[in-house]
Amino acid sequence: MDTRTGLPVVGMVGGGQLARMTHQAAIALGQSLRVLAQSPDDGAALVAADVQIGEHTDLDALREFAKSCDVVTFDHEHVPSAHIRALAAEGFAVHPGADALQFAQDKLLMRTRLTELGFPAPRWRTVEGLDDLVQFGDEVGWPVIAKATRGGYDGRGVFPLSDADEAAALVATGTPLIVEERVRLVRELAVLVARSPFGQVAAYPVVETVQRDGICVEVLAPAPDLSEELAVAAQELAIGVAKQLGVVGLLAVELFQTADGLLVNELAMRPHNSGHWTIEGARTSQFEQHLRAVLDYPLGETSLAAPAVVMANLLGGEPGGMSIDERLHHLFAEDPGIKVHLYGKQVRPGRKIGHVTALGSDMSSVRARAVRAAKWLQEGQW
Amino acid sequence: MDTRTGLPVVGMVGGGQLARMTHQAAIALGQSLRVLAQSPDDGAALVAADVQIGEHTDLDALREFAKSCDVVTFDHEHVPSAHIRALAAEGFAVHPGADALQFAQDKLLMRTRLTELGFPAPRWRTVEGLDDLVQFGDEVGWPVIAKATRGGYDGRGVFPLSDADEAAALVATGTPLIVEERVRLVRELAVLVARSPFGQVAAYPVVETVQRDGICVEVLAPAPDLSEELAVAAQELAIGVAKQLGVVGLLAVELFQTADGLLVNELAMRPHNSGHWTIEGARTSQFEQHLRAVLDYPLGETSLAAPAVVMANLLGGEPGGMSIDERLHHLFAEDPGIKVHLYGKQVRPGRKIGHVTALGSDMSSVRARAVRAAKWLQEGQW
Repeated sequence: MDTRTGLPVVGMVGGGQLARMTHQAAIALGQSLRVLAQSPDDGAALVAADVQIGEHTDLDALREFAKSCDVVTFDHEHVPSAHIRALAAEGFAVHPGADALQFAQDKLLMRTRLTELGFPAPRWRTVEGLDDLVQFGDEVGWPVIAKATRGGYDGRGVFPLSDADEAAALVATGTPLIVEERVRLVRELAVLVARSPFGQVAAYPVVETVQRDGICVEVLAPAPDLSEELAVAAQELAIGVAKQLGVVGLLAVELFQTADGLLVNELAMRPHNSGHWTIEGARTSQFEQHLRAVLDYPLGETSLAAPAVVMANLLGGEPGGMSIDERLHHLFAEDPGIKVHLYGKQVRPGRKIGHVTALGSDMSSVRARAVRAAKWLQEGQW
Repeated sequence: MDTRTGLPVVGMVGGGQLARMTHQAAIALGQSLRVLAQSPDDGAALVAADVQIGEHTDLDALREFAKSCDVVTFDHEHVPSAHIRALAAEGFAVHPGADALQFAQDKLLMRTRLTELGFPAPRWRTVEGLDDLVQFGDEVGWPVIAKATRGGYDGRGVFPLSDADEAAALVATGTPLIVEERVRLVRELAVLVARSPFGQVAAYPVVETVQRDGICVEVLAPAPDLSEELAVAAQELAIGVAKQLGVVGLLAVELFQTADGLLVNELAMRPHNSGHWTIEGARTSQFEQHLRAVLDYPLGETSLAAPAVVMANLLGGEPGGMSIDERLHHLFAEDPGIKVHLYGKQVRPGRKIGHVTALGSDMSSVRARAVRAAKWLQEGQW
């Protein structure tokens, strides 16, 4: 507890944009997020008052950090399970716990457990050698999608394979893999739910996520033209996963919508890119909700604040031309209603450096505004 | 400019809740608010990364502070004009400037100038001695309202006088005063406008403010049952004041609504309590708008995000009983949609320690929620 305010201290391991935006939400709740950042230049470290510099792989640093927190949570999935278990064994409150988080850290564990529990998934197989890959591809049809079991994000660690030769080249790298069928998609959806230690669960409206090169570029809330039946099924699925895996905090379930229904694609147990729209677009932002969940506060209302909300990611473009500050001036003149979130990051091609959110009553015009704003900020041209 | 982000640095003199909430808005814009706080325990100092401890009355501290800012602005009106002029003369960008800010610092200057410019006001007079007060009271009718020309806020510096005896006692204190008639009110309104150095102006919807013991306790947005004609008149009046006084940044104009129209009560040139509802209730919060204005960014959309928005202040109650943390748990269970903002302050009776905001479609039920939440957090009983 912060003795000055009488309010709890949440510590977040990792100093990226998720911690940065969680700090904004913490301020409203009377708190100040404590951040374990790798560098003073991390997005969250630039804005938070209470920052420890250290590595998330260093148990001593984690322990030192945890000592001044009421609860420890995560900006990413890269903290070793053994460290999380060690902290828990020493009596620190860590949410989500290692038993849950492992399923967001390891795709083999996730696929195995969700399959045991009966949740729908693409056909998949463990890859112990090239034979598994080739046999699977021959069975379900090429191309197939191989995935590194650990460490992938934003399209990294995902390998579409056209044939046995490509499979052989990948297996030769020694990366631990699973393989999945390439699903015939209608589109991708995502559901964000929060779960508290008490067991309360709250689900946000189902969104459509639009990917390019494996990176989420747009999120449409609510998912346009989604039947009530599928929307409820998606929320129930996500709530079921959260309960069965014992998640505390946020759980993002990325789904494939197919002609036959829903399949689980990926899980994340933290605030998630598919939920950035909630800052302005829902009554409770995902960042506030994550804080409420890990602190075992009753959860906030998840309803939409506008009929149509679209978030578009800003990816670092080629440097040069107008500065981001100049681009902001022009953007704000062009669209006074657009909301901009910049993460304090150095621009590198393809890196997520921020996002924009547009809100309104008509999805297609709202989407056009968000896409146009993101293009302008990235490329310096309309 | 922050060389790490390529974005401008705004410095705010004063580390209270206005700076605290401005920092939240700065984070979204890719910035980190620089704060000159009196104490490391100030509400903004608890949450901001870039804090200088120093006095706002110390020119050396102000100069040191300004050196690392692109623009300096204010959390309160207590910086001496001479210091602001000195900084401007040395080439620092300071918004609002001393020529504008003086009218928010000194009620005599404000009344004199607005009267010259033809803006409507209660009948008023300069008080140079007891005779002025008594003569004015006999003319317009007792009671009258004497006001300290400088330093008043939240009901302090406002003295209702019933008769010549009370007037004599007040004059004996030596406080420089003006005196105003006691206006027969319909209610109090407020209009918030932003103005940029370029000259762009944006007005928020007119709100009703509800005072108790001279302290604002509730703000209803939009002001219920206000005619379109009066709403436009109030906005035009505030825009006129902002232009005529050369305000840069936010200007809050507090108004009396009377049977005969509108009268200017007070001015503030900074984010204002009457605008806290904009955080969730308007497309652009007043804190983001203030940053945009002082940076000469084009201003943001000011429209309502919900048909009815009510902000209720939290005033420190008697200590004891349930902690604020326990009260939050109960409040969130009771009303999952209520938004809470706590300022990190020690609770003292009557001190503003936070606010709550409720949004919805029906003003009377939204108001009931906000009032109920504030009462609970303050008193620990429903």
